[in-house]
Amino acid sequence: MILSVIGLGLIGGSIALDLKKRDFVSKVIGVDNNTLNAHAAKKLGLVDEIQDLKSAVQSSDMVVLAIPVDACLRALPNIMNLIDHQIVTDLGSTKEQLIESVANHPKRNQFVPAHPMAGTEFSGPQAAHSGLFDGKCAIICNPEDSDKKAVKLITEMFHCLRMRCVFMDAEVHDRQTAYVSHLSHISAFALSLTVLHKEKSEKHIFELASGGFDSTVRLAKSSAEMWTPIFQQNKKNIGKVLQKYINTLQQFKDLIEEDDLNGVNDLIFEANDIRRVLDQKEKNEKETILQTVNK
Amino acid sequence: MILSVIGLGLIGGSIALDLKKRDFVSKVIGVDNNTLNAHAAKKLGLVDEIQDLKSAVQSSDMVVLAIPVDACLRALPNIMNLIDHQIVTDLGSTKEQLIESVANHPKRNQFVPAHPMAGTEFSGPQAAHSGLFDGKCAIICNPEDSDKKAVKLITEMFHCLRMRCVFMDAEVHDRQTAYVSHLSHISAFALSLTVLHKEKSEKHIFELASGGFDSTVRLAKSSAEMWTPIFQQNKKNIGKVLQKYINTLQQFKDLIEEDDLNGVNDLIFEANDIRRVLDQKEKNEKETILQTVNK
Repeated sequence: MILSVIGLGLIGGSIALDLKKRDFVSKVIGVDNNTLNAHAAKKLGLVDEIQDLKSAVQSSDMVVLAIPVDACLRALPNIMNLIDHQIVTDLGSTKEQLIESVANHPKRNQFVPAHPMAGTEFSGPQAAHSGLFDGKCAIICNPEDSDKKAVKLITEMFHCLRMRCVFMDAEVHDRQTAYVSHLSHISAFALSLTVLHKEKSEKHIFELASGGFDSTVRLAKSSAEMWTPIFQQNKKNIGKVLQKYINTLQQFKDLIEEDDLNGVNDLIFEANDIRRVLDQKEKNEKETILQTVNK
Repeated sequence: MILSVIGLGLIGGSIALDLKKRDFVSKVIGVDNNTLNAHAAKKLGLVDEIQDLKSAVQSSDMVVLAIPVDACLRALPNIMNLIDHQIVTDLGSTKEQLIESVANHPKRNQFVPAHPMAGTEFSGPQAAHSGLFDGKCAIICNPEDSDKKAVKLITEMFHCLRMRCVFMDAEVHDRQTAYVSHLSHISAFALSLTVLHKEKSEKHIFELASGGFDSTVRLAKSSAEMWTPIFQQNKKNIGKVLQKYINTLQQFKDLIEEDDLNGVNDLIFEANDIRRVLDQKEKNEKETILQTVNK
């Protein structure tokens, strides 16, 4: 099977690398508007060859879109017009608008909208690496609107990447990622800005930052090219989630300023329940790797 | 030299372990109100023996307070009444109130207020481990109010822990830690609460959480026993910092809702400058270890 990967950054490069290495595909054709990235991806061995979009799509059996969600929205209808027998998937962080853009396309059932919940704060082909997806969860949206064989192929692709698949309505996906992914990024960007602004008058403020600060602010390294269009496409959900987050911060502020120590204690005890979630996640990741490696 | 450590949790246990292991002290006496913790600390080899507060202080040359900041505020004046030649330091996250509490004590100059910028989200003697402080920064506050020899001893103690020392006014310390430490904790607690609350109606929401979520929420595992009194003692600064953080989040929300993509891009570019800070921190930590190990 021949795979085309459109977009050779962290996600596209890592997927190309592992699908070839683990023999899911026999050849990977790379496509990237940025010729420097395309050249680097070839040199790093992420892809076998570089082609333009049209010839890549037409020479392959499977097309993976790994570009920012605004570029994806522009590219997908064109790609759907080019395909014959090919199965197409995307890996974007927002799903409703993209699915809507090809809702009436005659080949809609050859498209499987997906979102692997993996990544780092780095970007570009140099950041791509084997094992990025191991143990994580892949979301496949609205599977009832895709051909069964197409869904099966994409599910097998994710299993090869050692991921577990969860099927979900696109609307639910966009609402839930606003909470567990998009909010984390905005909280980190805002934390970074708040302290960087203070640094202007207190130059040595970062001397006092310890590992806890690094952890909460790490995602603020993430690229605007990727994240601005995600925030735009999911603004309805993000607006609501940000309001809830701001309300919770305000509640903390009020309790602290009113010396309501029991109230603060109660909030922290409640927040501590995240231990259960993080422990369960760790367990799930280990089990997923065991199950998918044995397949 | 004989050391007494008051409070045998993560911080007290780790400091006891490394000061003994690296021959800074010949014997460590442990004190803890919680007899289970005291017993565990002895069994884990963090301390040589357990004594009550009075006999421990009087049998030692140096006293390190590693208890929550509210307990510290109650304990310090009593300890200062017990000492003869002993040097006393504390490791608490807030400094102004504590210093104020012994401002007029006749032995004030035997007390060196300090704050090592290290820790994890775990607590208790079981969480203590060697190397916790390696490469990090230790703050010593208002050194002009302590005896020179006392400051020298505490500086040497931190060098033995492979830390670099920064001298700072307590008021500046409390203001700056509100930004780089206390805010990170509240942002994580609030993030945890926001998503846990949504979990009540959407049970599988955490399936979609990836490593980025884990990173931003990790500090929400931290204990109320430690953090509520910190927020209380530093409420003046924390109130201001939280307001700035909320304003920045509101700015993000407004720009996203108004489709002002250039505005969102600009904020993210600005936030990305945190890369410079985190790279510099990593460099500082490596250099500190090299310099202190060679001493």
